[in-house]
Amino acid sequence: MTRSIGVVMNGVTGRMGYRQHLIRSVLAIREQGGVPLASGERVILEPYLVGRSEDRLERIAREHGISRWTTELDRALAADDTSIYFDAQVTSAREEAILRAMEAGLDIYTEKPLAESAAGARRLADAARRLGRKTGVVHDKLYLPGLLKLRRVIDSGFLGRVLSVRGEFGYWVFEGDWQPAQRPSWNYRAEDGGGITVDMYPHWSYVLENLLGPVRSVYALAITHIPQRWDEGGKPYEATADDAAYGILELGGGIVAQINSSWCTRVNRGELVEFHVDGTLGSAVAGLHHCRTQPRVNTPAAVWNPDLADPNDYRSMWEEVPGGDFGNAFKAQWEAFIRHVCGEEDHPYDFAVGVRGLELAEAALLSSREGRRVELKQVP
Amino acid sequence: MTRSIGVVMNGVTGRMGYRQHLIRSVLAIREQGGVPLASGERVILEPYLVGRSEDRLERIAREHGISRWTTELDRALAADDTSIYFDAQVTSAREEAILRAMEAGLDIYTEKPLAESAAGARRLADAARRLGRKTGVVHDKLYLPGLLKLRRVIDSGFLGRVLSVRGEFGYWVFEGDWQPAQRPSWNYRAEDGGGITVDMYPHWSYVLENLLGPVRSVYALAITHIPQRWDEGGKPYEATADDAAYGILELGGGIVAQINSSWCTRVNRGELVEFHVDGTLGSAVAGLHHCRTQPRVNTPAAVWNPDLADPNDYRSMWEEVPGGDFGNAFKAQWEAFIRHVCGEEDHPYDFAVGVRGLELAEAALLSSREGRRVELKQVP
Amino acid sequence: MTRSIGVVMNGVTGRMGYRQHLIRSVLAIREQGGVPLASGERVILEPYLVGRSEDRLERIAREHGISRWTTELDRALAADDTSIYFDAQVTSAREEAILRAMEAGLDIYTEKPLAESAAGARRLADAARRLGRKTGVVHDKLYLPGLLKLRRVIDSGFLGRVLSVRGEFGYWVFEGDWQPAQRPSWNYRAEDGGGITVDMYPHWSYVLENLLGPVRSVYALAITHIPQRWDEGGKPYEATADDAAYGILELGGGIVAQINSSWCTRVNRGELVEFHVDGTLGSAVAGLHHCRTQPRVNTPAAVWNPDLADPNDYRSMWEEVPGGDFGNAFKAQWEAFIRHVCGEEDHPYDFAVGVRGLELAEAALLSSREGRRVELKQVP
Amino acid sequence: MTRSIGVVMNGVTGRMGYRQHLIRSVLAIREQGGVPLASGERVILEPYLVGRSEDRLERIAREHGISRWTTELDRALAADDTSIYFDAQVTSAREEAILRAMEAGLDIYTEKPLAESAAGARRLADAARRLGRKTGVVHDKLYLPGLLKLRRVIDSGFLGRVLSVRGEFGYWVFEGDWQPAQRPSWNYRAEDGGGITVDMYPHWSYVLENLLGPVRSVYALAITHIPQRWDEGGKPYEATADDAAYGILELGGGIVAQINSSWCTRVNRGELVEFHVDGTLGSAVAGLHHCRTQPRVNTPAAVWNPDLADPNDYRSMWEEVPGGDFGNAFKAQWEAFIRHVCGEEDHPYDFAVGVRGLELAEAALLSSREGRRVELKQVP
Repeated sequence: MTRSIGVVMNGVTGRMGYRQHLIRSVLAIREQGGVPLASGERVILEPYLVGRSEDRLERIAREHGISRWTTELDRALAADDTSIYFDAQVTSAREEAILRAMEAGLDIYTEKPLAESAAGARRLADAARRLGRKTGVVHDKLYLPGLLKLRRVIDSGFLGRVLSVRGEFGYWVFEGDWQPAQRPSWNYRAEDGGGITVDMYPHWSYVLENLLGPVRSVYALAITHIPQRWDEGGKPYEATADDAAYGILELGGGIVAQINSSWCTRVNRGELVEFHVDGTLGSAVAGLHHCRTQPRVNTPAAVWNPDLADPNDYRSMWEEVPGGDFGNAFKAQWEAFIRHVCGEEDHPYDFAVGVRGLELAEAALLSSREGRRVELKQVP
Repeated sequence: MTRSIGVVMNGVTGRMGYRQHLIRSVLAIREQGGVPLASGERVILEPYLVGRSEDRLERIAREHGISRWTTELDRALAADDTSIYFDAQVTSAREEAILRAMEAGLDIYTEKPLAESAAGARRLADAARRLGRKTGVVHDKLYLPGLLKLRRVIDSGFLGRVLSVRGEFGYWVFEGDWQPAQRPSWNYRAEDGGGITVDMYPHWSYVLENLLGPVRSVYALAITHIPQRWDEGGKPYEATADDAAYGILELGGGIVAQINSSWCTRVNRGELVEFHVDGTLGSAVAGLHHCRTQPRVNTPAAVWNPDLADPNDYRSMWEEVPGGDFGNAFKAQWEAFIRHVCGEEDHPYDFAVGVRGLELAEAALLSSREGRRVELKQVP
Repeated sequence: MTRSIGVVMNGVTGRMGYRQHLIRSVLAIREQGGVPLASGERVILEPYLVGRSEDRLERIAREHGISRWTTELDRALAADDTSIYFDAQVTSAREEAILRAMEAGLDIYTEKPLAESAAGARRLADAARRLGRKTGVVHDKLYLPGLLKLRRVIDSGFLGRVLSVRGEFGYWVFEGDWQPAQRPSWNYRAEDGGGITVDMYPHWSYVLENLLGPVRSVYALAITHIPQRWDEGGKPYEATADDAAYGILELGGGIVAQINSSWCTRVNRGELVEFHVDGTLGSAVAGLHHCRTQPRVNTPAAVWNPDLADPNDYRSMWEEVPGGDFGNAFKAQWEAFIRHVCGEEDHPYDFAVGVRGLELAEAALLSSREGRRVELKQVP
Repeated sequence: MTRSIGVVMNGVTGRMGYRQHLIRSVLAIREQGGVPLASGERVILEPYLVGRSEDRLERIAREHGISRWTTELDRALAADDTSIYFDAQVTSAREEAILRAMEAGLDIYTEKPLAESAAGARRLADAARRLGRKTGVVHDKLYLPGLLKLRRVIDSGFLGRVLSVRGEFGYWVFEGDWQPAQRPSWNYRAEDGGGITVDMYPHWSYVLENLLGPVRSVYALAITHIPQRWDEGGKPYEATADDAAYGILELGGGIVAQINSSWCTRVNRGELVEFHVDGTLGSAVAGLHHCRTQPRVNTPAAVWNPDLADPNDYRSMWEEVPGGDFGNAFKAQWEAFIRHVCGEEDHPYDFAVGVRGLELAEAALLSSREGRRVELKQVP
């Protein structure tokens, strides 16, 4: 038995929306014959594209055999069979569109951040609760193979009681003068919603919460290391947004999380992001693809002795966690949300998670401005 | 022409005092024919040992051909030819002994920390100023080959404007139950002067100040990850001192220093301590022995793309700074202090440096207790 | 909006003209939908083939869907829509054909060398100026990935003040007796325009000028190392042209360029050509594909001591400059010239560059004959 | 049967004289029981030390069991048994001392350069001829293992007719500001006899002459790349001597030698000096320790094609010339000279070789100043 759900997809002409959500998720699900439910049924997704450019919508629709597209959101929301609304628009347009979709009776799945501010996100979460809508926010970092392996290590009890985690994220984003920058210039302008804290802290929020425990407090130092950059057209501009944020967070259970995020650092790590988790029985270092561990019994008795060359090759004393192909992160999230909509699974990555992500980013920036640790509301 | 200086050495029955200061410094200087001065003269050091155990003093004196030793400090201070007092006692005994030596007219060279508290250290610095004594405090970390190379890299201008430094120090100190601990148990008891913050922050103070700039503010989270340990006799005890401290410091010039110190982490680094310094034109990662660099032109254009395996082997893109034998750090410090006493050289590592080290440690602990950034007095 | 330009292509039956200019440039541009201008327009190129062999022209035209071809140059020049003339004929036919094309009102893009002699090249440059034609000469070596990386390194300031460059170009071209030669026999006959100096010095001219500074003087020793070779038919002939040239050049800014070009050397380098540039702050070695650097701080303190085996593995101390796909050099030059013709970009690689290349070759040969350094006219 | 020869050794308190000539040659010969002659006799050397410092002479004499030393040269020259005079003084004192020794009837063995100028060297050569003295000049570079292997390769006929040799010598000598220089500061002051041309061209003279053929002409560009350096005391000084020389030489037999000498280049070679010799049948690349070869039949048919990555790993296609321990170069030269003095062997490295070395250096500098090729007198 198959069953069909109409999905309004708004903003799929952008890179992420087009590539990760339309092609690699919704159309890939159609190609594989739908989402299998526990009941034995299969759910087919019927996309209804919404966007601002008729030309581009038409081209995408034709190329991929999609029958419905429109530039009027309400028309798509009003269609008989559409019951899920997906949003991958620019952040500034998101809150209002989601609200309209919820009022039109649809459940919501959306890219992050949920809104431009924690207040806006809370408005959406309140409305969803009031209207009884099901909600989901993208949380792709949890599906990185390295973090999936880390999760497996944590769940196995290998680490014992977890004490701390250090996260290093970052790489050098070129200034744009003598080499083109690898990221868009708006990322470096506060007035355009840029900044590494608002970009990355929503991720750190759900990653930490999911792997180790909810964030209780944050102290951050957000800074603009490089005050001038060159934009896509080669013109210099003032970089007003933070391009690095150094943070110390406390998690539930007395765990300390020290997390650095930087677009101004040269990578001397195995991967672009790495989390080093220490526990009483063992430690793990996880990146995008790899996760390596060292148990208590293999821990060397390191001794500080500057007189002697240290004979230990410390990095070689860690062992890779094996594990194969973990599939496409974005498709897996879509499938989980569909099963949730069909009543088969809880979905912990709802609007509340989106709210907490934005609250953490705002708390971090507040902490940086005021020079003090900021407490976060307890997760109920 | 040679000239002889009597040096009262107090506390050389301990490991550091005996091995680094007596054998590898003062006696090594005697063997090489003294400290050569710019004037052409050579200064011979005549040690006068002071300690609490007659037996051990006698044994050391006999073994190394040292003619004078006593258990009475004042007798040594009163000897005709003694003009330098060196202190390697337990910290709690240091302040009073140094004060007596200064009043007896001697110049002072001492192990760190200068005193048990910043207030005590300030008392000593004030007295030294009032009495006109020359002073020196051990600052051995600056002589680590890796940091000497880093200094050369910084001085050469290779890094351009320095933006930030991340320091990772630490290793796993065994709890003492199923394996003996590598450090003495008093390190883990606050009531005995233990704690990683008071142990390491005085070092970070002079290292950062010397390499990059004076510390302007500090936020730290000091924590006791492991609340119970087993002592030298195999008895369990409550660990009351901090065994990890996570810090974010601001230095002069807008540089951010993020420094982790931990006795509860398993080493996944090249060396037990590593400093990663990022600048506009290049970066360097320095440890105890090595220093590796990456200039701007060899910086890979890293792109975050979870879909693709990252083809870059980032660590292989750094190049070692060459450089040979840097000699014995402790002897080099003794020689510099002797030249200073003989009027030939300034000695920037005086009691004021010792005071600032303790002030930083106290500021870090205050910051941790109160959850706020603490400003430090400006270096005059 | 698109716009169409007719391009008379003379000499595309030869290997370079056919493969690099017709197939990989003009037809590739047609396939990609033309050259995009800053104005938003796209320029489509309509080739009009000219050659001596009707058969070959017809075959090429048919195979690639080209509608126009002729053996009469003037017919093509007179066509309504043709406004660019491209020349890839044998050098001896070039001067006259270009002159006719300019007189017929066309702008000119041409293979190098511009003419058989500097005098001929100057005649063409004068005529272009008088008639107001736009001109361009192929300068493909600058687009080698290795040299593009080197350019980035130089522009970044990594090298500091540049002191010198050593260039080694060459490989062993077989004599033709026991193995066929890899190059045509006319290259080794002066009477047919052969010789390594006339072949390579025009390249060195624009490469040095573009990367480091204009050539001020040259001393060269051009020599015929192998006096007898065997031609394509297996017949021995006297090799009358120089097959190696050893040169020492002075560039603007006091930079010395020492450049060897040889068809009589066995390759003991990473690549067939390598430029080693030394500067006060760093050095770089660039070839066709690679560019490796060594900054000042990683420079080993080499000491000449024949008694001891040198512990340094010098080549391993250089680091590759990263960088990806640089595209097709010939197409990139065509696109730049098209934008120039459409008034959108300057084009520094004009007939004046072609003139200077030939002047350098002639100065080198004069210098070799007379045994003296020859000064070059200053670039205005 | 043994026979004893008294050797007046002047200037053995300097590093070279003491270490290479006294310890590793004359005393080593004494220890091995003398120089064996073809006749079956053994020649024992009895050193008579001459110098300016009584203290140092006495210390050296006592330490090594040498019975005779003096500060008065004439006393040593007048001793009954002294028949060889050896000179390792500073160059400015050499000419006069050698002249006195020859007039006193002694044969001469001397460090290079023979005199401060070619004219001075010619005076000594003339006097030696007139007085009938035997003469020898140190030529240690020929004894480098790599050059000994190269000589073996050349003598074997492996290379066929030699066409050319390229020599690269050099390394980066630090300026002395941020790292101490590896060479004495006088090397960089013309007024003190410094300069890389006068330092190295005498070596290139005998190396080329011995391996490939006498030098017929030279064109050189000598330049001061680094105009300011810091001396042993850390004081800046003006560098007035040439620190790099780029040369193109013609040797007998039409061989071209292109030789670069530089103290301002970062080493991207296997060794600090390398000679690449190309011949019709094969090529060789020799350094201090290694010599690698490629015969005609293993020469790859390299093709210049910028479109394709070159599949050849050129350096891996050369094969090491095996060969073991070649002994101490300085002792071997002493033994050869002793056998010559005893009438058993010719000694081609006489004063005439010393004259030619200085003439080549002077011709190179003249050529650089006047911008023209300078011819050298034919070796008779």
